[in-house]
Amino acid sequence: MSETAKPCRVLSGIQPTGRPHWGNYFGAIRQYIDLQENNQGFYFIADLHALTTVRDAEALRQHVIDTSLDLLALGLDPKKATLFVQSQVPEVSELCWILLSGTPMGLLQRCVAYKEKMDKGLPADAGLFSYPVLQAADILAYDSQLVPVGADQVQHIEVCRDIAQRFNHQFGDTFVLPNASVLDDSAKVPGTDGEKMSKSYDNTLPLFGTTKKIRKQIMRITTDSRPMEDPKEPEGDHLYQLFSLFASEDQKQEMAAKYRGGGFGYGEVKKAVAEASEEHFAKAREKRLELEQNLDYVHQVLADGATRAREVAAGVLSRAQKACGLR
Amino acid sequence: MSETAKPCRVLSGIQPTGRPHWGNYFGAIRQYIDLQENNQGFYFIADLHALTTVRDAEALRQHVIDTSLDLLALGLDPKKATLFVQSQVPEVSELCWILLSGTPMGLLQRCVAYKEKMDKGLPADAGLFSYPVLQAADILAYDSQLVPVGADQVQHIEVCRDIAQRFNHQFGDTFVLPNASVLDDSAKVPGTDGEKMSKSYDNTLPLFGTTKKIRKQIMRITTDSRPMEDPKEPEGDHLYQLFSLFASEDQKQEMAAKYRGGGFGYGEVKKAVAEASEEHFAKAREKRLELEQNLDYVHQVLADGATRAREVAAGVLSRAQKACGLR
Repeated sequence: MSETAKPCRVLSGIQPTGRPHWGNYFGAIRQYIDLQENNQGFYFIADLHALTTVRDAEALRQHVIDTSLDLLALGLDPKKATLFVQSQVPEVSELCWILLSGTPMGLLQRCVAYKEKMDKGLPADAGLFSYPVLQAADILAYDSQLVPVGADQVQHIEVCRDIAQRFNHQFGDTFVLPNASVLDDSAKVPGTDGEKMSKSYDNTLPLFGTTKKIRKQIMRITTDSRPMEDPKEPEGDHLYQLFSLFASEDQKQEMAAKYRGGGFGYGEVKKAVAEASEEHFAKAREKRLELEQNLDYVHQVLADGATRAREVAAGVLSRAQKACGLR
Repeated sequence: MSETAKPCRVLSGIQPTGRPHWGNYFGAIRQYIDLQENNQGFYFIADLHALTTVRDAEALRQHVIDTSLDLLALGLDPKKATLFVQSQVPEVSELCWILLSGTPMGLLQRCVAYKEKMDKGLPADAGLFSYPVLQAADILAYDSQLVPVGADQVQHIEVCRDIAQRFNHQFGDTFVLPNASVLDDSAKVPGTDGEKMSKSYDNTLPLFGTTKKIRKQIMRITTDSRPMEDPKEPEGDHLYQLFSLFASEDQKQEMAAKYRGGGFGYGEVKKAVAEASEEHFAKAREKRLELEQNLDYVHQVLADGATRAREVAAGVLSRAQKACGLR
């Protein structure tokens, strides 16, 4: 993400749909939080998007506050960045309709999330179908220049640019065209079964929780059954990959030497993974416990964030309304 | 529309897409303005809906103000009813997204306006496709009980009820289910060519304009070429039908007798139509000229209307947000 070099408006939306795991952290969260440095970071918790999947009010409320706590605990700094809840910026919903009016059906029909559901013969709702337009509204509402996304989301940024360009072309220059910044997914984060860590494989290790419980999960990570004495090649071993996420270069080399030397057990590596991860997440876990005791502060951060976000979004919405004749 | 007997919240949305003609007036406008008596009438100018067809900012702005002037001139009374512009109530756009999230694609794919366009192989945009959901948001945002619509719009009220019921079923009782009140289309309003008066046939007579110009249009109404002396049957004659729109029972009988007696000319009937229509619309036309000189008043009416509409919509939106977990 070389674009981070020059400061710009960075936007990131986080789905409040469940508890984050190590894969989320190394593959995304850590990277977009890093962007708060030397940028104007806007981070929103995408509760309106979550509505398309979370159809349980209590769960959604809990997810939103949990996600806020996670982000703040992991270092998102309200002094550096703007953190807010999507639905607290009505301007985004207003912009969404304006953009829907100029979006060709074909553009949305080609979007992957909807197409996949259709191809599987699953029933889809209009929320899933219109999702890329709400996403475009989110991005355009803040004059966002850079949007860090996973490789599978690049299409949506292109849809956003397409929608913005159509509007600009028809009504005059109104929206800033955003650029995608593809998240680095080179760090291998295997799950407890050795496959890629993913909620859908049910093989995740949580970022937050009690040390005791997480350590239990780590100790249950699947390993092969080669005898302890055999020398082993560390590269490609998922325990070694997990250890590498937290280890310094020296620590990695030391561990690799142990693998190659043989005469050690996987239990020893698991213990090392547990200790290294505990050390790595210690500050965040402690911070999260503190924040849980201080929800008023968290709500204040979100309220301040929404105020700041609305200031920007109101300006953009006003430009769009004037351009198309609604004002 | 026997429902007018008991007072209730009536909602009517008016498309700001052009100048109203006699057909609009007798087939719709007059009827829904009548509903302001003994009801809580909410009348909005549907600029967000118009966006799907009017892609010219200056035209849209002009249409919105023209439509406001038309309605006020025709008797919509801000003391009895609430008149406002749709886009000035952000709550409706917010509700629209919430409802989109629970609306099955199939429900929208079956809606006539979209289907017709598809069947003709025309490109459609997502605004047209999502139109019934915005319409549902409009209706539900004001706890509307009665929605006067043309027969071709009844399907959309059913879609609205369906969407509301789904939400209520999933999240608990939140929305009031509206009822359609089908407008009386029994008055025959032929156009200048004898076909049904309609913008698409280019055969309309305007409600507003200079007497001279409108009279010219009336004098050009197509007639058959039977000799003046022949007795004629008035029923089925479009000039007689036009005259009947404005005439009392006595005047109609008198005119019918002339038809049957023969020895008169169509020019005479045209003159009678011109005079009767001028008398009928005199007050409205005068009022409109006055209002045109008093746009500040009109803007104030719309601003007051928006304030009142937002009060109601904010309450409904808040119920919906709490129900689905956004608050």
